[in-house]
Amino acid sequence: MFTLGELAGRLGLAYTGDGQRPLRGLAPLHSAAPDQLSFLHGERHLAQLRDTRAGAVILTPEHAVARHGDCLLADDPYLAFARASQLFRGAAPPPAGIAPGAVIDPGAVVDASACIGPGAVVEAGAEIGASVVLGANVFVGRDSRLGRATRVYPGAVIYHDVHIGRDCVIHAQAVIGADGFGFARGPAGWEKIHQLGGVRIGDGVEIGACTSVDRGTLEDTCIGDGVIIDNQVQVGHNCRIGARSAIAGCCGLAGSSIIGADCTLAGGVGVVGHVEICDNVHVTGMTMVTRSITRPGSYSSGTPMAETRQWKRSAVRFSQLESMQRRLAALEQPPQAREEGSGES
Amino acid sequence: MFTLGELAGRLGLAYTGDGQRPLRGLAPLHSAAPDQLSFLHGERHLAQLRDTRAGAVILTPEHAVARHGDCLLADDPYLAFARASQLFRGAAPPPAGIAPGAVIDPGAVVDASACIGPGAVVEAGAEIGASVVLGANVFVGRDSRLGRATRVYPGAVIYHDVHIGRDCVIHAQAVIGADGFGFARGPAGWEKIHQLGGVRIGDGVEIGACTSVDRGTLEDTCIGDGVIIDNQVQVGHNCRIGARSAIAGCCGLAGSSIIGADCTLAGGVGVVGHVEICDNVHVTGMTMVTRSITRPGSYSSGTPMAETRQWKRSAVRFSQLESMQRRLAALEQPPQAREEGSGES
Amino acid sequence: MFTLGELAGRLGLAYTGDGQRPLRGLAPLHSAAPDQLSFLHGERHLAQLRDTRAGAVILTPEHAVARHGDCLLADDPYLAFARASQLFRGAAPPPAGIAPGAVIDPGAVVDASACIGPGAVVEAGAEIGASVVLGANVFVGRDSRLGRATRVYPGAVIYHDVHIGRDCVIHAQAVIGADGFGFARGPAGWEKIHQLGGVRIGDGVEIGACTSVDRGTLEDTCIGDGVIIDNQVQVGHNCRIGARSAIAGCCGLAGSSIIGADCTLAGGVGVVGHVEICDNVHVTGMTMVTRSITRPGSYSSGTPMAETRQWKRSAVRFSQLESMQRRLAALEQPPQAREEGSGES
Repeated sequence: MFTLGELAGRLGLAYTGDGQRPLRGLAPLHSAAPDQLSFLHGERHLAQLRDTRAGAVILTPEHAVARHGDCLLADDPYLAFARASQLFRGAAPPPAGIAPGAVIDPGAVVDASACIGPGAVVEAGAEIGASVVLGANVFVGRDSRLGRATRVYPGAVIYHDVHIGRDCVIHAQAVIGADGFGFARGPAGWEKIHQLGGVRIGDGVEIGACTSVDRGTLEDTCIGDGVIIDNQVQVGHNCRIGARSAIAGCCGLAGSSIIGADCTLAGGVGVVGHVEICDNVHVTGMTMVTRSITRPGSYSSGTPMAETRQWKRSAVRFSQLESMQRRLAALEQPPQAREEGSGES
Repeated sequence: MFTLGELAGRLGLAYTGDGQRPLRGLAPLHSAAPDQLSFLHGERHLAQLRDTRAGAVILTPEHAVARHGDCLLADDPYLAFARASQLFRGAAPPPAGIAPGAVIDPGAVVDASACIGPGAVVEAGAEIGASVVLGANVFVGRDSRLGRATRVYPGAVIYHDVHIGRDCVIHAQAVIGADGFGFARGPAGWEKIHQLGGVRIGDGVEIGACTSVDRGTLEDTCIGDGVIIDNQVQVGHNCRIGARSAIAGCCGLAGSSIIGADCTLAGGVGVVGHVEICDNVHVTGMTMVTRSITRPGSYSSGTPMAETRQWKRSAVRFSQLESMQRRLAALEQPPQAREEGSGES
Repeated sequence: MFTLGELAGRLGLAYTGDGQRPLRGLAPLHSAAPDQLSFLHGERHLAQLRDTRAGAVILTPEHAVARHGDCLLADDPYLAFARASQLFRGAAPPPAGIAPGAVIDPGAVVDASACIGPGAVVEAGAEIGASVVLGANVFVGRDSRLGRATRVYPGAVIYHDVHIGRDCVIHAQAVIGADGFGFARGPAGWEKIHQLGGVRIGDGVEIGACTSVDRGTLEDTCIGDGVIIDNQVQVGHNCRIGARSAIAGCCGLAGSSIIGADCTLAGGVGVVGHVEICDNVHVTGMTMVTRSITRPGSYSSGTPMAETRQWKRSAVRFSQLESMQRRLAALEQPPQAREEGSGES
C-alpha cells in the first residue's frame, strides 16, 4: 500500500488531490476501485475517465482537466504506469540458497546470494552470479554464465557455453543454446554440422516462454542489450539482434539473419536466412522478410482478411494475375494492332 | 476386451450381428482385424467398408445396408467412435500419492487422492484437487489451484495465481501464466510492465504441448469451459477465449484479443491485439485476423499455393496491382479522354 | 588438436602445404586464426579467401588456385566441413551411469552403458539402449524405447509407447507422443478422442528444441530414417514423414498429412490435414500447402514484402481482383457490346 503522495514521490510525478489517499493496487479504468490506481493511455479509453471509480489516475496534464478526482500527472502515462507496476508487484524475490533437490557440480561457481530451486542442475564450469534466481528444474550447462540478478523461470534449459548478462529474465521452457539446424547433404543423407559456437546475450534482455535461441555454428549467436523477445519465438544459429529490438510472439528468424537495433517485429514474422535488417525497422504481423532491408521504415506482406467466399474469388484471380496483365497490355495496344494480334491469346 | 453387446450397451447404441463377438481394440477400416472395432465417418472411406476385416463397424443406419458383418448403429458415428476410444484406452490412472522426489511446500494443500510425480514442485498456497495427476517435474506456483481430476503432463509449468478448473488436460511443456509481453518505451529502452493479473481456465479445457498462455497485465487472461487448444499455440496477456472454442496448432493470439464462444481457428492463424471475434466464427489456416469480426461465418486470408516459378509471376504482379488498376481505369475512359490523357502514364 | 596431415587422413582428403601444421579449431574465413581450419563453400565468400589468416582452408581444387596457403581439397567442401566439425567438437560424451536424482522404474530396462541425468524419469516397460544419453529431467514414459546412442537433451518429454531408433538427437523441451488434437462434437461440446496410437521414429533422426510430435489416433505417427526437424515444429497425429526429409523451424503439419522422402520444407510452412506430398518436393518459407502435391518441384504461396504504405495499396486491390477481372472482360468485348452493357456495371 502506498499513499498518493508516496507514489508521486517514488515515480517522480506531480499529483493533484488528496496526498494521503491509500492506493493498494493497479487496475484498468473500467474496473478500478476507490483504493486502486489507474491510468489513461491515449484517447481510446477517454470515455471511461468520467465514470471510473479509481482512487487516482495517471494521465497527462491536458487530460487531467476532464478528470474529477485525484491525479498523477505524467507526460508519458504509459511509462509511468510501467514504473508503478514495479512498485505494486507483490512477491518478494525468493530467499538465497540452494534447494535440497538441486544438483550443483563441484566445479560450478554459485554466488551465495543466488537462489537455486529444487531439481535445478548446474554443470561444471558454470558461473551463477549474485542474486540470480534459478527456478525449479532449470538446467545450466557446462561453462555457461548468468550475470547478476538474472532470473530463470522453471524448466528453462540453458545449454553449455551460453553467456547471459545481468538483469535478464528467461521464462519457462525457453531453450538457449540448442544446436542450430546445420546439416550437409552427404551420399547417404544429411550429415550433422556440429554447432561449435555459443550464445551471447546482453544485459536487461527478456526471453519469453517456449522460445528457442540456437547456438552458433562456429561463432556465437548474439542478442544485444535490452532486447525483448516474446513467447514461441525461434532464433536460428548465428543470428545477431541489435540492442533494444523487440520480437513479438511466434516470430521465426532463420539462421544467420541480422536484425538491427531498435527494430520491432510484430507477431508471426518470418525472416529468411542470411538477410540483414537495418536499425529502426518495423515489420508488421506475419510478414515474410525475404530480402535485406536497408532503409528504416515499416514493411509488410500478406493479403487482407475477408469472408472466405469472397476471399476465394480473389485468391483464384491472384493465380491469374500474369494473364490479366497480358490482357491489359493487349487492350492498351492501338485498336489496329489489337486486331492483328487477336489470334494469339 | 468387450463383447459387441457390451459395447452397444455402454455406448447406448443398437447393434446388428453377433452380440457375443469379442472386440479388443479400435482400428481404421483398412487395417482392422476381426477382433477390432472400426467406424465409418462420412463418405470418404466408404469403399473400404466392403473389404474391411473389422469385427464390427460403427456406422449410420443408411450405411449399414452396405455392410456385410456386425454393426453398431449410430446417428453420429464419429462421436460414437470418440466415446468408444474412451472405453479402449489402456492405462489406469496412476495411483494416488506423492512420489519421493516431489517437493510440496508445507503451505500447499494437496488432496489425498492426487498423484504427484517425481520431481514435481508445488509452492505455498497452491491447491491440488481430488484425483489430480501432476506428471514428473511439473511445477505449480504459489497460490495456483487445480480442480478435480485435472491432469498435467510431465514438465508443464504453471506459474503463480493460475486457476485451472476440473477435468482439464495440460500437456507436456505447456506454460500457463508466464509474463505477458508488456513493455513501455522509456528514455533508455524498454521498461517492463509487471504482469499483475493471473490466468483463469474453466472446466474441461485441454491445452496442448508447448503451448503458452500468458498471465494478464492487471486483470486475468480467461479461457472458457470446454475450450480445446492444440500444440505450439501462443495466447497473449488479457486474452479471453469463449466456451467450446477450438484453437488449432501454431496459432498466435496477440494481447487483449477476444475470441467468442464456439469459434474454430485452424492451424497457424494469427490474431492481432485488441480485436474481438464474435461467437461462431471459423477462421481458415494461416489467416491473419487484422480486425474485429462481428458476424458469424468463415474468414480467410493468404494466396493459393502454386509451383514456385508460376507463383513468382503472380507475386510480382501483386506489387503492381495499383498500377494495373490505374491502367484499367484509363482504358475505361471514353477514347477521346484516353487520348488526351495518354501522355500521363 | 590435429595436424593438417592427420585431418586429411581422417577426412579422406588430399592436402597441399605443411602436413605438420597444427589446427586447433574451425572458424569462418573472416575470423580464422593461423591455427584454425576454415572452408570455402560456393562463391559467396570467395573474396575473403585472399585475406583470410586461416591456417588451412577446405576448398575445391578449382578454388585452390586462388589460395596462397595450405589447403584441404574436397569435391564438396561443405560436406567435408561438416565432417571436420565432428572431429573438433569438444566434449566427450558424459560417462555411463544413473545420476543419484534419477528415478528408474524397476520394470524399465536401462543398458549399463547409458547415461541417465539427474531428475530423469524412466517408467515401467521402457527400454533405454546402449550408450543412450538422457539429459537432466528428461521423462521417458511407459513402454517407450530408445535405440543405441540416441541422445535426449534436458527437459525433453517422451510419452508412453514411443519408439525412437538409433543415433537420434532429441533437443530440449521437445515433446514426443502427446495426444493428437482429436475431438468429436457432442451435444454439450467437444468429446475427446483418446489417442491410442504411438510414435515410431527411425534411425539418425534429429528433432529440434520445443518441437512436438503427436501420437497417432489409432495407428502410429511415423518419422522415417534420417529425417531432420528444426525447432518449434508441430507434427500432428498420424503424420508420416519420409526418409531424409528436412523440416525447418516453425513449420506445422496438421493431422494425417503425409510428407514424402527427400522433401525440404523451409521455415514456417503449414501443411493442412489429410494431404500427401510426394518425394523430392521443396516448399518455400511460410507457404501454406492446401492440397496434395503429386509432382516433384518447388512450391510457394504468399506475397512479396514491400514498404507498408505501398503494400497497403496492393492489399486493397487484392480484395478487388474479382471486379478488376470483370472490368477487364468488359473492355475485351467488342465496342458495340460494351456500349450495350455499359449500364450494368
